[in-house]
Amino acid sequence: MLVTAGHHQLILCHLNHGLRGRESGQDAVFIRRLARRYELPCEIAKADVAGMAKAQRISLEMAGRNARYDFLQRMAVKHEAARIYLAHHADDQAETILANLCRGTGIGGLKGMLAETSGGPVLCRPLLGMPRQEIEAYIETHGLDYREDSSNVSPAHRRNRLRHEVLPLLNQVYQREVAPLIVRLGRQAARDDGCLWEQAMEFVSAAGAIESDGSLRAGQELRSLHPAVLSRVLHHWLGYVLGLPGMDAVIMDAVLSMLHPGGPAKINLPENRHLRRKAGRMWVEGA
Amino acid sequence: MLVTAGHHQLILCHLNHGLRGRESGQDAVFIRRLARRYELPCEIAKADVAGMAKAQRISLEMAGRNARYDFLQRMAVKHEAARIYLAHHADDQAETILANLCRGTGIGGLKGMLAETSGGPVLCRPLLGMPRQEIEAYIETHGLDYREDSSNVSPAHRRNRLRHEVLPLLNQVYQREVAPLIVRLGRQAARDDGCLWEQAMEFVSAAGAIESDGSLRAGQELRSLHPAVLSRVLHHWLGYVLGLPGMDAVIMDAVLSMLHPGGPAKINLPENRHLRRKAGRMWVEGA
Repeated sequence: MLVTAGHHQLILCHLNHGLRGRESGQDAVFIRRLARRYELPCEIAKADVAGMAKAQRISLEMAGRNARYDFLQRMAVKHEAARIYLAHHADDQAETILANLCRGTGIGGLKGMLAETSGGPVLCRPLLGMPRQEIEAYIETHGLDYREDSSNVSPAHRRNRLRHEVLPLLNQVYQREVAPLIVRLGRQAARDDGCLWEQAMEFVSAAGAIESDGSLRAGQELRSLHPAVLSRVLHHWLGYVLGLPGMDAVIMDAVLSMLHPGGPAKINLPENRHLRRKAGRMWVEGA
Repeated sequence: MLVTAGHHQLILCHLNHGLRGRESGQDAVFIRRLARRYELPCEIAKADVAGMAKAQRISLEMAGRNARYDFLQRMAVKHEAARIYLAHHADDQAETILANLCRGTGIGGLKGMLAETSGGPVLCRPLLGMPRQEIEAYIETHGLDYREDSSNVSPAHRRNRLRHEVLPLLNQVYQREVAPLIVRLGRQAARDDGCLWEQAMEFVSAAGAIESDGSLRAGQELRSLHPAVLSRVLHHWLGYVLGLPGMDAVIMDAVLSMLHPGGPAKINLPENRHLRRKAGRMWVEGA
C-alpha cells in the first residue's frame, strides 16, 4: 500500500522476538524476500524477549512491545527516517480501547492508539481507520503474500481473548460489527480529552500556577476551574511536572477533594508521600 | 434501606407489565405485603406492555420502560412526591454504558444513567454506585425477602446477554470485576461531557449565536471554537432548538466539515432536509 501510494524510500524492519522457534526464522526469510522483490533495504534483528520479561518482571506482551519500539526507533535514527509506519488497523484499535476500558481508563484511555504521534521520529498508523476485513480484501485483490503470527490465536494473551471471544460475542448480541463504533467513540474521546487538556495547559502557562519550588498555587483561580479542567491541571502537576508514580483515578479523586469546601488539608500519596494544602498552596512531602 | 435512612413518607409503586402471567400477579402480592409490613401506602397498576410494543413497533424492553416511567411520574404527581427512587445499581450502570458503547455512543452516552435528574419529579438512583454483590450482602445481613424477575435471565434480551455472558467473560479475561471500573469511567465521562456542554451553552447565550429565524451565525467566532465545543453548539442548534431527528455522530461529522476551510456549502440531512452555509450563516431547508 505504501509503495502504491508513492513511497519509495522505505526500509523494511523486522524484530525476531525469539518466541516461536522455527516459525520466527521463517518470518525473517519472508521479510528478506519481500525486500528483494520491492528492491528495498531491510533491517532484521533478534531480541531475547522472554529473558527481558523475566528480568524486568513484566509480561511477554509488554517486553515484546518495548523491544519492538526500541528497535524501530534505533533503525529510524540509523537511516535518518522521519516516520515509522505501523500496521495497526481499526480492529486493533477497538481491542485497545476495550482493553483500556477493562483496565480502568479515563476518557484519555478511550483514545486508544494515536494515528500520528508528535515528536520525531513520528509513529504513523495509516491503517488505523480500516477494518481488518478491508485489509484482507485488499490482499486478495492484489494477490499479496502474508504470514500469520501463530501467537495471535493463543488464548494465553488477553488481547487474543478480546479478539476471538469478546468482540465476536458483542457482534452477535448487537447483530452488527461493533469495532467501528468503538473506534468512532475513540476519535470523539481524543477530541474531547484534547480540548480539556488544552484548557488545562493554557491555565498552567497563563496563571503561572506552578511555582519554581514545585508547589502549586491553590487559590480562587484554581478552585474556580471546572473539575474536568482542574483534574487535568492537578494531573499535569503531580504526574508530569513532579513525575510522581501511581497517579490513578482513585488518587486523583482524593486530590480533587482537597479543593472542595471543607476538603482535607492532607492526603496520602503512593510510596510514602503526602500532599498538603495550606494558605492557598499545595505541595508534596516525603520520599 | 430508605426506611433505615429515615425516609417514612414513602409510597411503594409497582407496575405489572402483564408479561409473565401468574408470576406477575405474585409480584404484586409481594409488594402489597411489603407495604403492609412497613405501614406504607402502595400503588399497583397493570399495563399491556406487549400490546403497546406491537402498536408502537418498539421492543418489549422499550415499551416496558416507557410504561413504567409514565406510571411512576403519574403516581408522583398524584401523591405530590418530589422524588422517585429507582433501584438501579452499579452492575446495571456498567451494562448501560457497555450497551451504549456497542450501539455507537459518544462520550455523552458513556455517562450511563444519571444518579439524579433535574426537573421534577426528580428521578433518584441512590444505589447507582453500589455493586449487586453489596446489595445481596445487605439483603442477607438484614434477612430481607425479595423476588427475582424471571425475564432477567432470558437470553432473548440483549441486556441479559451483557449481564450473563459479556461481563462475566470480561471479568474472567481481566481476572477482576470490570463493572466498577466502567462505572468510574462513566462518572468521568459525565464530568467531561458536562464541562464541554457548559462551554457550548455559554457560547450560545453569550454570542447570540442563534437568530430569531432559527438560523445560526457561522462567522469567525463560531469557527474559532474547539471542535469539541463546536460540535456541541451545532448539536444543540440542530437537535434541540430545531428539533431535527437523526442527528447521530455520522451526520454531526458532516455538519462539522462545513466549517472547515474549503468545506461544503450544502449537505443532506435525514428526511429530505438540507443544511446550507452562505455569507456567515447556516440554515436548514426542506421538510
